[in-house]
Amino acid sequence: MDSLAIITSGGDAPGMNAAIRAIVLSCHKKGIECIGFYHGYNGLIDDDYQTLTPDMVRPIMQYGGTILKSARCPQMHTDEGVKSVVKTLQRHNIKALVVIGGDGSFRGMMALQPHWTGRLIGVPATIDNDLACTDSTIGFSTAVNTATQAIDKIRDTANAFERVFIVEVMGRHSGHIAFNVGLATAAESILSFENCPAQDLAQVKQTLIEQIQTKQQNNHSSFVIVLAENLWPGGPQGLQQALHREAHIDSAVCVLGYIQRGGSPSTEDRILATELAMEAVEAAFTESGVMIGKEQGRIKRSCIIGATEQSKPVDQAIHSVYKLLT
Amino acid sequence: MDSLAIITSGGDAPGMNAAIRAIVLSCHKKGIECIGFYHGYNGLIDDDYQTLTPDMVRPIMQYGGTILKSARCPQMHTDEGVKSVVKTLQRHNIKALVVIGGDGSFRGMMALQPHWTGRLIGVPATIDNDLACTDSTIGFSTAVNTATQAIDKIRDTANAFERVFIVEVMGRHSGHIAFNVGLATAAESILSFENCPAQDLAQVKQTLIEQIQTKQQNNHSSFVIVLAENLWPGGPQGLQQALHREAHIDSAVCVLGYIQRGGSPSTEDRILATELAMEAVEAAFTESGVMIGKEQGRIKRSCIIGATEQSKPVDQAIHSVYKLLT
Amino acid sequence: MDSLAIITSGGDAPGMNAAIRAIVLSCHKKGIECIGFYHGYNGLIDDDYQTLTPDMVRPIMQYGGTILKSARCPQMHTDEGVKSVVKTLQRHNIKALVVIGGDGSFRGMMALQPHWTGRLIGVPATIDNDLACTDSTIGFSTAVNTATQAIDKIRDTANAFERVFIVEVMGRHSGHIAFNVGLATAAESILSFENCPAQDLAQVKQTLIEQIQTKQQNNHSSFVIVLAENLWPGGPQGLQQALHREAHIDSAVCVLGYIQRGGSPSTEDRILATELAMEAVEAAFTESGVMIGKEQGRIKRSCIIGATEQSKPVDQAIHSVYKLLT
Amino acid sequence: MDSLAIITSGGDAPGMNAAIRAIVLSCHKKGIECIGFYHGYNGLIDDDYQTLTPDMVRPIMQYGGTILKSARCPQMHTDEGVKSVVKTLQRHNIKALVVIGGDGSFRGMMALQPHWTGRLIGVPATIDNDLACTDSTIGFSTAVNTATQAIDKIRDTANAFERVFIVEVMGRHSGHIAFNVGLATAAESILSFENCPAQDLAQVKQTLIEQIQTKQQNNHSSFVIVLAENLWPGGPQGLQQALHREAHIDSAVCVLGYIQRGGSPSTEDRILATELAMEAVEAAFTESGVMIGKEQGRIKRSCIIGATEQSKPVDQAIHSVYKLLT
Repeated sequence: MDSLAIITSGGDAPGMNAAIRAIVLSCHKKGIECIGFYHGYNGLIDDDYQTLTPDMVRPIMQYGGTILKSARCPQMHTDEGVKSVVKTLQRHNIKALVVIGGDGSFRGMMALQPHWTGRLIGVPATIDNDLACTDSTIGFSTAVNTATQAIDKIRDTANAFERVFIVEVMGRHSGHIAFNVGLATAAESILSFENCPAQDLAQVKQTLIEQIQTKQQNNHSSFVIVLAENLWPGGPQGLQQALHREAHIDSAVCVLGYIQRGGSPSTEDRILATELAMEAVEAAFTESGVMIGKEQGRIKRSCIIGATEQSKPVDQAIHSVYKLLT
Repeated sequence: MDSLAIITSGGDAPGMNAAIRAIVLSCHKKGIECIGFYHGYNGLIDDDYQTLTPDMVRPIMQYGGTILKSARCPQMHTDEGVKSVVKTLQRHNIKALVVIGGDGSFRGMMALQPHWTGRLIGVPATIDNDLACTDSTIGFSTAVNTATQAIDKIRDTANAFERVFIVEVMGRHSGHIAFNVGLATAAESILSFENCPAQDLAQVKQTLIEQIQTKQQNNHSSFVIVLAENLWPGGPQGLQQALHREAHIDSAVCVLGYIQRGGSPSTEDRILATELAMEAVEAAFTESGVMIGKEQGRIKRSCIIGATEQSKPVDQAIHSVYKLLT
Repeated sequence: MDSLAIITSGGDAPGMNAAIRAIVLSCHKKGIECIGFYHGYNGLIDDDYQTLTPDMVRPIMQYGGTILKSARCPQMHTDEGVKSVVKTLQRHNIKALVVIGGDGSFRGMMALQPHWTGRLIGVPATIDNDLACTDSTIGFSTAVNTATQAIDKIRDTANAFERVFIVEVMGRHSGHIAFNVGLATAAESILSFENCPAQDLAQVKQTLIEQIQTKQQNNHSSFVIVLAENLWPGGPQGLQQALHREAHIDSAVCVLGYIQRGGSPSTEDRILATELAMEAVEAAFTESGVMIGKEQGRIKRSCIIGATEQSKPVDQAIHSVYKLLT
Repeated sequence: MDSLAIITSGGDAPGMNAAIRAIVLSCHKKGIECIGFYHGYNGLIDDDYQTLTPDMVRPIMQYGGTILKSARCPQMHTDEGVKSVVKTLQRHNIKALVVIGGDGSFRGMMALQPHWTGRLIGVPATIDNDLACTDSTIGFSTAVNTATQAIDKIRDTANAFERVFIVEVMGRHSGHIAFNVGLATAAESILSFENCPAQDLAQVKQTLIEQIQTKQQNNHSSFVIVLAENLWPGGPQGLQQALHREAHIDSAVCVLGYIQRGGSPSTEDRILATELAMEAVEAAFTESGVMIGKEQGRIKRSCIIGATEQSKPVDQAIHSVYKLLT
């Protein structure tokens, strides 16, 4: 193999740097040149790159973000964009492209596949954990720990004021973050896509109001609602207003937002990123169109299409634990 | 002295528990009974209290929030409320009341003063640091460290995406948090009451747009704006829309919110709370209507009225450092 | 079932409180009385206990340590001790005893088994992760994250001084902590039981010296050795002296020690503790002599003897990743 | 002025990077070239340097360690070493040298002074806080917060086991860290140079034994001793053995060590470093032989000799608070 290229693409996730590091060190051991393109697919369109050496990646294991920068790339939805990427890959004699990212980044790989003969390998990195064929995506562990620590702090105030808090967490359209964080922070209520189908929101609200009123009558000192982003009409403020309007319940809103995306990766994310990245370099010699995942303790390769198109439900155990405890 | 009472009142602040602990231990050493009333002034109205012993407060130094709970108390603005508090204080034979809180809590003390002969001592605790006669209020150090760490995480994403972020921090109507956190996170812009008078916001916006455009032309990788709450019309979203509308600048918004209020207190806040609280017990033997503060390294007693009514400007040094560095 | 008893025993581990909480809440839902005995088996000998209610355990999810205290209990190695425990269990009409702890605590259960007809259920909690039949023990995730963050700090100094550091981590007689932490901190060398058999230590030392010398010649800025406790003769100081004596290599020693045992549990440990604890209450109705574990994503019950007597090797993947990267 | 040089020297301290950043940005604003020499004075001997630009220092505010590396430099005690430094400074046409470091680093400046006509400015950075003419040195705030958080974790285990812990903290020959951390962690005993003169150690030990025994009789759940490094003969293990030998008191030892030196600087250290560093650049135009400090809220310049030779006692307030509370 002449050269291997890497990009980080889509929303950044803690552990992306750990993955870059492992790929570069692994290529170096194998005598393969490793080229990093900047800003996701944009760097492949604009030929914006850097040859990566072990010295460059030695200190980055512990840092959030990505030294290769990231970005969305709308041009990848056009023929012209895709062809431009292919030209860059050919010009550099790239034999394999490793894409570290989520759902959207993998769709970019699928767009490339018919037009390029090199190998395409995906490494799942997104805090949302919404990719199938891997128990955990890189960044998920750090994000849930960051959110958990933030809600621990909010709990201090909620307890001091015996107050209702609505805390919005990330997750795009799935409840992996909401359920894990809600369970870990002993949230009195978790509202996410999995237990709040759109058509039942009126009923969900009614139940929530009753729960809050019951707890308040029992002198329960605080009530934390963990709310998945993109779920409630009008967002957390919409829910806040509804509680007030319909039951005179006062509440405070906190949107955790981007702090969930950054920070030094957890030990779990550093190790997962390293394992998946090293396997990605192995796979790059023999396969294409695969995503590297870890399921039930084993590293495995899955078809990138399946990983992207299947949905991954929230762990049933967590779901039922939540039901039993609240 | 027969008994001393404590309340924590207003917004909670990390270090309130450390102050409670020091008061209880100090009373114990002196053989004074110490009674904690719950939920701020409300506990004094409702006679909701607990006699506090050293064993109860031993483990609480490191915890955010307040074991005595806190609350606002609108009834303190009425004669009836104030008289009700006085009755409770008399019934328990309280000789001194120590109020741990901010601005509004101290106004409650001033309302009590004409109606009660006991001693009134204030201990300044609010994350906003907006009380005069003390360099720092209890909770301020923890809040700025929490906000700084949160923005460090946001910086990861801002760098990865080379993006503009507007981060709203607390502070009520002053910029202590905004300037300290903005400086500590190397924010490209700090917008607060001190440098953005209401009548100049149009000019401020214009300058901001030019700064962002200049940095973007120089390939500067991210631009973080630290925005004081209650400053911008429409809040951070208002600023976000203005940047987009007037200069096509895309930005992301993050409101740090309540995470700034909670969490384990910093070493500085634990020590300050302990020092001020111990002096409060000393003062309770001889004075009334005073707030305990620390200025230029010395513990001192100031008139509660002055502490409440004077404004405390942001440290000039921080101001000028910011100007020189950006 | 009349009553269920809980103890936490052996070295404390972050997440023990989360397990206690889940057991108490689960018992409450099922209408079972839940009694906590203090100081591990000692409380069962001394009849030192407290009936646990939901209100007591509501706020404890996020705290390290154990509200039931812990201890070693040498008396459990005597017939008299065991009989005394049985008497207490009978006096309180206990139908099931849930033991939250590690290896030694489970041996206590095995000692009880022939003498008591109630049900015995183990919940694996130890930072060392040295129990079979579960991928992870409660506390392991927190411990490796704490150690990782500590070594990140040490790396700052190691880089600034271009210095060799020997950092001792816990783990009793296994390398789960050493390998996970070593990998996550990009340690230049990991020395543990798995890759350093006693008879080969001379050879290990020789290789280590060569690695350090090679890196130093290449201007590599720091060299961190993660050393498992109980491995090296004379501990980290023994290794330090050997490096100096035999190769004039100066190094600094850091023993992370007990900080690895405490602290607020990670999200992973809180969830694992909750899941295992809830299953423990389920199992207590129908089985005895089992430990609740989680393997490959599934909660399962295993024979307590197997869990204690089998050894659990360090994940092979981690092992090979380490070899490839260094 | 043609050029200004910077070195970081002696033990590294969190905030050194923040100081470098502020100096570089400030020089840039003033049109002065800024050259960083590596490894403290060694870089000035070996002519190992880099011209520093704003882009290089933009992201470093939040990182521990120092991008300029640090080192001790025994050659500065020789005429030859000093002359070699002077030659390098002259060759580069350096008009001012800013030394970021502690006691030993400032002695290096004093050695240079008779031999070089350029300006010498000191910026106090050491976690030990043992320099006069400044209330706080850069790094001290971070170190005490790191140690406090570590002991919070140890307290979990100490409480769970109702155990005596001896925790050694840094500080060289002064008790700033010991007293601040001891107070903040509610340590039952603080042993440092200030309250344990060498000739009284037998008496200190006796008192300590009595305190422990009293607390144990009162069922106090844990006993943490914060011990200053270099104080006790045989270190913490010496004290541990003495307690055991003379009073059968079992205790556990924890040496916090190098974790106190690293980590992301606290908000306080970032701001202090920035303020002092900017003033250092100002001073470099007009003065020599001064250290920049902050006392009682004001930035000031002091004679470097005084700063180094005067001793700075631990804040009397902290001392007396400790006495009153234990």
